Amino acid sequence: MRERLASVTAWMNKNNIAAAFVNSTENVFYLSNFYTDPHERLMGIFVFKQAQPLFVLPAMEAGQLKDAGWEYEIIGYSDHENPWELIKTSLETRDLAKAESVAIEKEFLSYGRSEAFLAFFPEAKVVSVEDKLNEMRVVKDEKEIAIIRRAAKMADFGVQVGVDALKEGISEMEVLAKIEFELKKKGIREMSFSTMVLFGEQSGDPHGNPGDRKLKAGDVVLFDLGVILDGYCSDITRTVAFKSVTEKQKEIYNTVLKAELASLELSKPGTRIGDLDKIARDLITEAGYGDYFPHRIGHGMGINVHEFPSMSHLNDGIVREGMVYTIEPGIYLPGIGGVRIEDDVLVTADGFETLTKFPKELQIIE
Amino acid sequence: MRERLASVTAWMNKNNIAAAFVNSTENVFYLSNFYTDPHERLMGIFVFKQAQPLFVLPAMEAGQLKDAGWEYEIIGYSDHENPWELIKTSLETRDLAKAESVAIEKEFLSYGRSEAFLAFFPEAKVVSVEDKLNEMRVVKDEKEIAIIRRAAKMADFGVQVGVDALKEGISEMEVLAKIEFELKKKGIREMSFSTMVLFGEQSGDPHGNPGDRKLKAGDVVLFDLGVILDGYCSDITRTVAFKSVTEKQKEIYNTVLKAELASLELSKPGTRIGDLDKIARDLITEAGYGDYFPHRIGHGMGINVHEFPSMSHLNDGIVREGMVYTIEPGIYLPGIGGVRIEDDVLVTADGFETLTKFPKELQIIE
Repeated sequence: MRERLASVTAWMNKNNIAAAFVNSTENVFYLSNFYTDPHERLMGIFVFKQAQPLFVLPAMEAGQLKDAGWEYEIIGYSDHENPWELIKTSLETRDLAKAESVAIEKEFLSYGRSEAFLAFFPEAKVVSVEDKLNEMRVVKDEKEIAIIRRAAKMADFGVQVGVDALKEGISEMEVLAKIEFELKKKGIREMSFSTMVLFGEQSGDPHGNPGDRKLKAGDVVLFDLGVILDGYCSDITRTVAFKSVTEKQKEIYNTVLKAELASLELSKPGTRIGDLDKIARDLITEAGYGDYFPHRIGHGMGINVHEFPSMSHLNDGIVREGMVYTIEPGIYLPGIGGVRIEDDVLVTADGFETLTKFPKELQIIE
Repeated sequence: MRERLASVTAWMNKNNIAAAFVNSTENVFYLSNFYTDPHERLMGIFVFKQAQPLFVLPAMEAGQLKDAGWEYEIIGYSDHENPWELIKTSLETRDLAKAESVAIEKEFLSYGRSEAFLAFFPEAKVVSVEDKLNEMRVVKDEKEIAIIRRAAKMADFGVQVGVDALKEGISEMEVLAKIEFELKKKGIREMSFSTMVLFGEQSGDPHGNPGDRKLKAGDVVLFDLGVILDGYCSDITRTVAFKSVTEKQKEIYNTVLKAELASLELSKPGTRIGDLDKIARDLITEAGYGDYFPHRIGHGMGINVHEFPSMSHLNDGIVREGMVYTIEPGIYLPGIGGVRIEDDVLVTADGFETLTKFPKELQIIE
């Protein structure tokens, strides 16, 4: 954690930012290894250009913060105290009177809390600390990769449970319940997003929701799921056929698979990120389905299931070693059905590894 | 929904507030009957003192908004458009140049979005629209009560599943998984918070988390769970004994039950809210356990599982017909175990009804 705080401090020195306030659960976790959601109560880290950082949180959680490894000042407040008054006293020891710039999470911090923080620096320019943190979080370290690897394995397991549960007449919600049941028994407390199990034509709606629909021969089944494990996410999509498959379904499936493999093959340091979307989109467009692939090829993944980089054709950023993102092309034919294939990808020194490993050749489940 | 918007507009006229921006998923749902979480994309309602309201959201969701009953202007934007530019054009038709005050959700709206909104009103004072909405949401209408009633029934069912699952050697996570499995099969897609199943001394930690602990004779078992149904929450806690119970456990259980019943009995229009906490706390303190009841007696419940009113001894507000809140005293003995009993309470014209109905006399599960 020390290196991460040092990197923020270095950025603050370079840009003459006197103080930064980090308030989101995710960025606090990233900087402190401490994961908590105190809901409406104030919790966050103050980082300074020229002083030690400061953690503010409800007093009853201070012990867990220390257990997580926090070595610096802590303000633990009780329910009858106003934390901003305690913060003020602490800030006064840090010689910040002439701050020219301060940083907050502009896209996250509430207006009310920004008012309280910025009241200490009435003359300062306000810049975003999110850009810096997003950039840092884009490249994962070994410890993070090891956790995401385990989370991806759990996602593979979830798909296997779902496939094993398929039988004539079972409903989408029943399959979904089985998947989450088996994952909970393995200790997973939270999914990284609302699990999707979609049958037949339902799979043709990229915003479809699981319901009471019963499985019948000839349906495709689309699974999209992921888990949160030790603070990190996974995210996998697989599509299988039940009992039989039409030539049209096969064609769509193989087009999506070809697009996914082409995009994966480009996944190596130095590639323009937008080109990962472009190569898949071009293949799908050539096959005549360009209008039925309405979303970007993927998204960065880590503490948030959707984080930077955005894997859109517009992204001129460059793929770097240690990035983790999804590649997930899809084709959705309204009223007919859809196919999406999604892997979690780790960029290595000279290529890539998919962390999700569930087989991708078209499976017809009997 | 029309009445709710009209109530906000009346408040704005009374306080000379020219425009209000409502951005949180919960308050948008409350004012529009439209529930969506477009994540980082902008979505919200602009309400005006002297003009029709305006809804802004991603274009692909506009159809669902109309289906939910929205009758006013809609700005649907696509991913390549800047919604704030479209909003500017629309606001220019509404004669807002001389706004003296505008309202936002101060505790929710991000600094970045408040900057974009307030740029339209450089001279205006900024007030909170949350206070008004919180006050409106405190009293539930018949439709809301009917939904919460169904959500509470699902919570009762969840506890029953958990009790039925208890057997020597089963783990907390296994019981939790069974509860959520059966609820999912009934169509519940989301729990209103992370389900708690705590055995034995674990139940003595009000911040304990379920894990691999195995059930053994003599353990108490604490269940705390709730579901989200059609946008509304439920929240129940029950504590049972497994196979046997000590005199000490019985004494604690009956103290908590007595405190809960006393607080319930006071639940009627006109009671000071803080007195609901006080009567329970006094009883627990008299029994010698005052130091082991470290939280407030309950919280308002509705679209959020925790909302206003806060059922703290400090709350000088008055209980009103149509309020829905939890009453949940507890005693937690570190290293020994805990007991909490929680109901969802609806205040009626002359008293109360508990919407959760799972039995409360001490059960010893064989």
